[in-house]
Amino acid sequence: MKREKTIREADEKQKIINHLSRLEGQIKGVKKMVNEDKYCNDILVQLAAIDKSIKSLSRTVLNRHMQTCVLEQIKEGKDEVINEVIELLKRFDL
Amino acid sequence: MKREKTIREADEKQKIINHLSRLEGQIKGVKKMVNEDKYCNDILVQLAAIDKSIKSLSRTVLNRHMQTCVLEQIKEGKDEVINEVIELLKRFDL
Amino acid sequence: MKREKTIREADEKQKIINHLSRLEGQIKGVKKMVNEDKYCNDILVQLAAIDKSIKSLSRTVLNRHMQTCVLEQIKEGKDEVINEVIELLKRFDL
Amino acid sequence: MKREKTIREADEKQKIINHLSRLEGQIKGVKKMVNEDKYCNDILVQLAAIDKSIKSLSRTVLNRHMQTCVLEQIKEGKDEVINEVIELLKRFDL
Repeated sequence: MKREKTIREADEKQKIINHLSRLEGQIKGVKKMVNEDKYCNDILVQLAAIDKSIKSLSRTVLNRHMQTCVLEQIKEGKDEVINEVIELLKRFDL
Repeated sequence: MKREKTIREADEKQKIINHLSRLEGQIKGVKKMVNEDKYCNDILVQLAAIDKSIKSLSRTVLNRHMQTCVLEQIKEGKDEVINEVIELLKRFDL
Repeated sequence: MKREKTIREADEKQKIINHLSRLEGQIKGVKKMVNEDKYCNDILVQLAAIDKSIKSLSRTVLNRHMQTCVLEQIKEGKDEVINEVIELLKRFDL
Repeated sequence: MKREKTIREADEKQKIINHLSRLEGQIKGVKKMVNEDKYCNDILVQLAAIDKSIKSLSRTVLNRHMQTCVLEQIKEGKDEVINEVIELLKRFDL
């Protein structure tokens, strides 16, 4: 059942790439803080922000996934995609 | 009240840096997947793994923070550190 | 679009009712603990257990919902059910 | 180390009891919905609200616990209460 490709529009793709680049930058920032012995509370505030940012990106990609791939596959009779979604939600603790 | 520095042992510091470097690698990996138009479900599985990894790192840093800085500050009479912890937990949705 | 009814099998329905009755019992138990001035940590352990139990029940009902109602509605051309699911996941912070 | 009692002020205690009673009412409401074969999405919306409500009550009790019992115990030299808090946070997935 597993699909190999998801063709995203250039604009949408760029937004996701930008979001991931920002995340990379944030992680580099935390590394610098640890190297400079910054106060743990401040490091944890940054880690919480990174966590929120990943959750937000995941939500964007998940919603798009459901509105396109999941819908299409069900219409093509590939009902098992619903179980794939259920497995995925479990990974996000739902 | 805010402290400027937290002196961590070299070993502990290295472990945190290594964890952050792995996270950076994982994010680069997701960027590659998006660029190659990989199937969203597979991208989401990676994002869920990154999320778990940040949570786990945050837990490690938080526990160490409480066992050292928080404890010390309370013993020094800086009770307001408890409110700092409460604010921090709120950022992690607790 | 909103459906009025979901006909569940008697057995499935009974399991959900039983789960909810257990939750009710657990909440009554916490009330008793508060009335008897029990130690907060022990009360919080119970609240954490109740939280896990509600999450687990929600997961069961959500999965069943997707495997039945959501699938059927998409097959009937009611694609907007996907947005209903997205709204629902947002309520569970996803 | 474990304490047997936490003496809460009458007002604070009443607020917690009221919150728990509201939760009990909400759960009874969901039971009624299941019995009446209500649409799963609507049931899930209620379960999400109950989940939020328990999280909010837990946060209130936890914050009070840290500002009183945890602080006092550390001042009495019972540093191990920090590990008790860490164990507790783990139960809330932190």
